[in-house]
Amino acid sequence: MANPSLLILSGDGIGPEVMAEVKKVIAWLDAKRGITFDVSEDLVGGCAYDRHGTPLHDDTMAKAQAVDAVLLGAVGGPKYDSLDFSVKPERGLLRLRKEMDLYANLRPAQCFDALADFSSLKKEVVAGLDIMIVRELTSGVYFGEPRGIFTEGNERVGINTQRYTESEIARVARSAFELARRRGNKVCSMEKANVMESGILWRQVVQEVHDKEYPDVQLSHMYADAGAMQLTRNPKQFDVIVTDNLFGDLLSDLAAMLTGSLGMLPSASLGAPMENGRPKALYEPVHGSAPDIAGQGKANPIACILSFAMALRYSFDLGDEATRLEKAVEKVLADGVRTPDLMGPAGGTPVNTAQMGDAIVAAL
Amino acid sequence: MANPSLLILSGDGIGPEVMAEVKKVIAWLDAKRGITFDVSEDLVGGCAYDRHGTPLHDDTMAKAQAVDAVLLGAVGGPKYDSLDFSVKPERGLLRLRKEMDLYANLRPAQCFDALADFSSLKKEVVAGLDIMIVRELTSGVYFGEPRGIFTEGNERVGINTQRYTESEIARVARSAFELARRRGNKVCSMEKANVMESGILWRQVVQEVHDKEYPDVQLSHMYADAGAMQLTRNPKQFDVIVTDNLFGDLLSDLAAMLTGSLGMLPSASLGAPMENGRPKALYEPVHGSAPDIAGQGKANPIACILSFAMALRYSFDLGDEATRLEKAVEKVLADGVRTPDLMGPAGGTPVNTAQMGDAIVAAL
Ligand SMILES: CC(C)[C@H](C(=O)O)[C@@H](O)C(=O)O
Ligand SMILES: CC(C)[C@H](C(=O)O)[C@@H](O)C(=O)O
Repeated sequence: MANPSLLILSGDGIGPEVMAEVKKVIAWLDAKRGITFDVSEDLVGGCAYDRHGTPLHDDTMAKAQAVDAVLLGAVGGPKYDSLDFSVKPERGLLRLRKEMDLYANLRPAQCFDALADFSSLKKEVVAGLDIMIVRELTSGVYFGEPRGIFTEGNERVGINTQRYTESEIARVARSAFELARRRGNKVCSMEKANVMESGILWRQVVQEVHDKEYPDVQLSHMYADAGAMQLTRNPKQFDVIVTDNLFGDLLSDLAAMLTGSLGMLPSASLGAPMENGRPKALYEPVHGSAPDIAGQGKANPIACILSFAMALRYSFDLGDEATRLEKAVEKVLADGVRTPDLMGPAGGTPVNTAQMGDAIVAAL
Repeated sequence: MANPSLLILSGDGIGPEVMAEVKKVIAWLDAKRGITFDVSEDLVGGCAYDRHGTPLHDDTMAKAQAVDAVLLGAVGGPKYDSLDFSVKPERGLLRLRKEMDLYANLRPAQCFDALADFSSLKKEVVAGLDIMIVRELTSGVYFGEPRGIFTEGNERVGINTQRYTESEIARVARSAFELARRRGNKVCSMEKANVMESGILWRQVVQEVHDKEYPDVQLSHMYADAGAMQLTRNPKQFDVIVTDNLFGDLLSDLAAMLTGSLGMLPSASLGAPMENGRPKALYEPVHGSAPDIAGQGKANPIACILSFAMALRYSFDLGDEATRLEKAVEKVLADGVRTPDLMGPAGGTPVNTAQMGDAIVAAL
């Protein structure tokens, strides 16, 4: 049987630095565990624009469609701020999400014990926090038509369209309910059904899928503004949250920030199963390209490494290896190994990006 | 000269209870300061639906258009959850906002010293916090067309339209810059220009208004997801935030929750100046109708009283009276007078809604 295949798109900013540490883990799996990936690499984002004049070349898109999983670092940077909308680094990422049809974006927001002091929230509010945000990723206002800037009379008008079909809502709801069954068995769905018809449909369809297919899971609904409040006030009330693309963008970033561990948080974007039974999948850290610290060895590679752990679990059925990797990360943190973003008043052993990667491999 | 006129719409849930305390302040101003308002009252929300079958009767709408300022309590409740979208309590409020053209929603997020411990955030992160969120209130996805739930092929599709014209953006930007000049002179504008064309236009127009009319104000731009993060991590970096209707809904609720003082936060919704020079205006507490505690004397009337203080300042040029009222609230808090929502481990004198109102009037 052919080896499982990975496409690595390190991207911009700190992307290549943190991805270099993932490669060490991949090499370790090959050498020590006999788990070998066929790895290819390519460009996405600003670096792809620099080379090809587009943030995602068609050849790269084709490769992404062909592999078992894509690992992405980060895209964007001030250098590209003035580019036209259509070729901005973000468009490369959005094209991958859309054309691979990665409709379920899993964003765990977990507070690591060793880092609970880092949150701007009180320790008792976030210690032990473990929620999973499931964000719809291929529809809504991110992709709806019509869109653009038009002229009406003598002024400009900016238009975007929020648009959800029943089946788009139903499939991401299923992802959330499936996850909940393997966790705390609770789903909270968030929208603005009091203001938006698309929110009314969202609420109805989530409820219907629940009643027909997942009556055993506890389901609640919340307006997204109240959701933002409740996430801030008492985040531990939640288990799985399911929401649309735009609300998910804000709420998952908010949830990530609660944990105080932004440099630690992975994500998985999953689509429908391919012929081999594996879901289409892209894994990326929640943090961005952090141009201010790029190239200085300051970046924390843990979010990217934990994204690879999610790949092991969700794409390759290697849940045990994923857990081993997560435990190695926990051990290194407990030992006080700290990239600059993790260095608090309690001190620790300061390390750079590469040293953090080495420490994690050593702990494996 | 005729007395200034007020229309009181107490609404549902705790609305009537908290508004009763505002009436005491109005009576005090009349008796002790010779400031007399012509006060009328009417229905909005669920109670209007119960009476008229609509959450805002046309006569009430006409009255709101005719007065100098509207004071609103709160709308909504579980009793009305199953009503059709078109007659839900919220539609009454949204109609007022739209037809009065109240485009600038001012939501101060202030952390009261006596209450800093109530926040789920660390005290040092929120103590002294004083930001002003200016939310566009009459356009965007709340009102854009087309909208609705349609059938396409054999499935339902939910559609809403985000739509902003140049002039809609420019006028709310001006409100933000004007406010900033009287505060910390900084404005941060939030959108998703990396994903939405309406966000690109938003950013451009805010920048243009700045460069032409308010070059002295410090302006920055932030993506709304990063904004949610930064509000959580380090809210004191902000002075005035200007954003659209939907982002403003989430971000202002988030900011309110940071302060730990939700029962304390007022809001003003302002439109263009009327013939008499006063802006069209509606004042309401940020908290909702809180049906779970309605009718029990547990509600905190301070948010509603401080909303009236905003009315004194923004509608009636009575800034000194507004400050006097705000100081009275501070004094009562410093004295340890506490409605149930304000009762923390440090204790205090427990009071009900009416007693809190009386204490504030006594402190005036
Ligand atoms: C980079 C940007 C297009 C993206 C988004 O808005 O989805 C990012 O914020 C994210 O959450 O992955
Ligand atoms: C009640 C509801 C329609 C309203 C809104 O979404 O604007 C509320 O959440 C608010 O923020 O005033």
